Amino acid sequence: ATTAEIDKQLSDDLIESLIDASLGARQNSYSPYSKFPVGAALLAHDGTVITGCNVENVSYGLTVCAERTAVCRAVVKGHRKFKAIVITAEMGDRFVGPCGVCRQTLAEFGLDWEVYLSMPNKQYMKTTVGRLLPDSFSPEWVTLGNPA
Amino acid sequence: ATTAEIDKQLSDDLIESLIDASLGARQNSYSPYSKFPVGAALLAHDGTVITGCNVENVSYGLTVCAERTAVCRAVVKGHRKFKAIVITAEMGDRFVGPCGVCRQTLAEFGLDWEVYLSMPNKQYMKTTVGRLLPDSFSPEWVTLGNPA
Amino acid sequence: ATTAEIDKQLSDDLIESLIDASLGARQNSYSPYSKFPVGAALLAHDGTVITGCNVENVSYGLTVCAERTAVCRAVVKGHRKFKAIVITAEMGDRFVGPCGVCRQTLAEFGLDWEVYLSMPNKQYMKTTVGRLLPDSFSPEWVTLGNPA
Amino acid sequence: ATTAEIDKQLSDDLIESLIDASLGARQNSYSPYSKFPVGAALLAHDGTVITGCNVENVSYGLTVCAERTAVCRAVVKGHRKFKAIVITAEMGDRFVGPCGVCRQTLAEFGLDWEVYLSMPNKQYMKTTVGRLLPDSFSPEWVTLGNPA
Ligand SMILES: [Zn+2]
Ligand SMILES: [Zn+2]
Ligand SMILES: [Zn+2]
Ligand SMILES: [Zn+2]
Repeated sequence: ATTAEIDKQLSDDLIESLIDASLGARQNSYSPYSKFPVGAALLAHDGTVITGCNVENVSYGLTVCAERTAVCRAVVKGHRKFKAIVITAEMGDRFVGPCGVCRQTLAEFGLDWEVYLSMPNKQYMKTTVGRLLPDSFSPEWVTLGNPA
Repeated sequence: ATTAEIDKQLSDDLIESLIDASLGARQNSYSPYSKFPVGAALLAHDGTVITGCNVENVSYGLTVCAERTAVCRAVVKGHRKFKAIVITAEMGDRFVGPCGVCRQTLAEFGLDWEVYLSMPNKQYMKTTVGRLLPDSFSPEWVTLGNPA
Repeated sequence: ATTAEIDKQLSDDLIESLIDASLGARQNSYSPYSKFPVGAALLAHDGTVITGCNVENVSYGLTVCAERTAVCRAVVKGHRKFKAIVITAEMGDRFVGPCGVCRQTLAEFGLDWEVYLSMPNKQYMKTTVGRLLPDSFSPEWVTLGNPA
Repeated sequence: ATTAEIDKQLSDDLIESLIDASLGARQNSYSPYSKFPVGAALLAHDGTVITGCNVENVSYGLTVCAERTAVCRAVVKGHRKFKAIVITAEMGDRFVGPCGVCRQTLAEFGLDWEVYLSMPNKQYMKTTVGRLLPDSFSPEWVTLGNPA
């Protein structure tokens, strides 16, 4: 493995601590309508961990997922470069992929970073933002086609 | 090719007429903020064509893309099974993939149907809902994991 | 009453036909998650009636309400000036006000038009877009403060 | 004034410190598309201050306003009762009211708390969540009308 690859690889300990962090945030999930709590933990480029949980609304269309809550919290704190996000939910023995809104939100900050879908039992599968949103509509395009 | 495949294959004439329909709807785009008009044409299972254009809002977060406008129009008219959607936008010589919100909206009605990204010059590339949203979070999961 | 006022006043017959139209659209509501079907009927300036119903998504945050569905359909057909919208839902003996997303969507097309909240039994209460969104953030402001 | 009223009244110093906090968060606004940075500061029931800024997306419909960013951050930290929110933006000499999405998001946590619209020069006007969303569609209704 090259140095670059090693650098991108998260250690098992780090992944586990991110899963723990996402589970902690999941405790504060506000999901009285779906009754489906989700937690997330975002790893910023500088090593900071920022968590999120879903925040629902009586008008369903206003629901903010855990991933977006984490991204918003990170941006408020000045972070815009990320290494990885861990998303934890419980749905039988399935890994729950992020919804399209969240994929696009993550893609706003680059396609080449890692996404870990995990379960409360700490099993996980690893993918990337780019793989979750192939042929994505990305920020640089707008500059290209719509200079205003 | 098997019969099933032939059945799924749209003829060149049909694709062109869908591109034309999407271009027609794009004329009615309400996009004073992005100045980026998009048109869509949805082909329902029974052959009906339903078009859409983007509808923006001064509060950016309320924008509804052309794809979702088309889906909403279709649902109001009782359609919930689709064969294909054509999305037409102009961004240099690039095909513009649908945003994550739209991918998830299309996926609500199945993963196994076709998406054509096209340009005003009628060039197009073909993909599917499932390929645009790998490892998707889909409706049947909810019944599975969250029977409430 | 002045001519202008008379012109703005909808006749009882027209209101009832709009309620009927909203009830018809409500039949096509796609609301498997909330199980709360809503219908809407929009009266365009030229007398055209355009209906809508809510279109939900497994990812709650993508839900499009009936009011917005109607507005999107109208815009695709070239309508941008409206006289009134009727919104019909059933929640005991209460009138259900539109959610904030819908209020803002209606306000995109002016504050000075009528909103009728109605029930399947055809009772209704009348208000206006402006009254539902006081001190609104409106399109002309953006031109003012953000000329780009 | 009764004790209850006194308790609800924020001191000038507290309001100014909340405006300062919102201005600080506004510095981190991610608004490359609208170029319209907004900051918010939420005062939780226990006196904690939680800030927010707007976080935009190349797909406009995914934009999260400053008010919602603040609410999401608060919920992740376990806060669900609020006394006030300050929202700061700059648009000539106008106070910028929150968009409908934000009004509905605030209303999820009660109608009877204060909203201060402010400017970088620290002028402000005071209103309440309830006044910004009259005849609101509120959480308790759902339990009432839709027990599922
Ligand atoms: Zn999501
Ligand atoms: Zn879209
Ligand atoms: Zn609504
Ligand atoms: Zn807002």
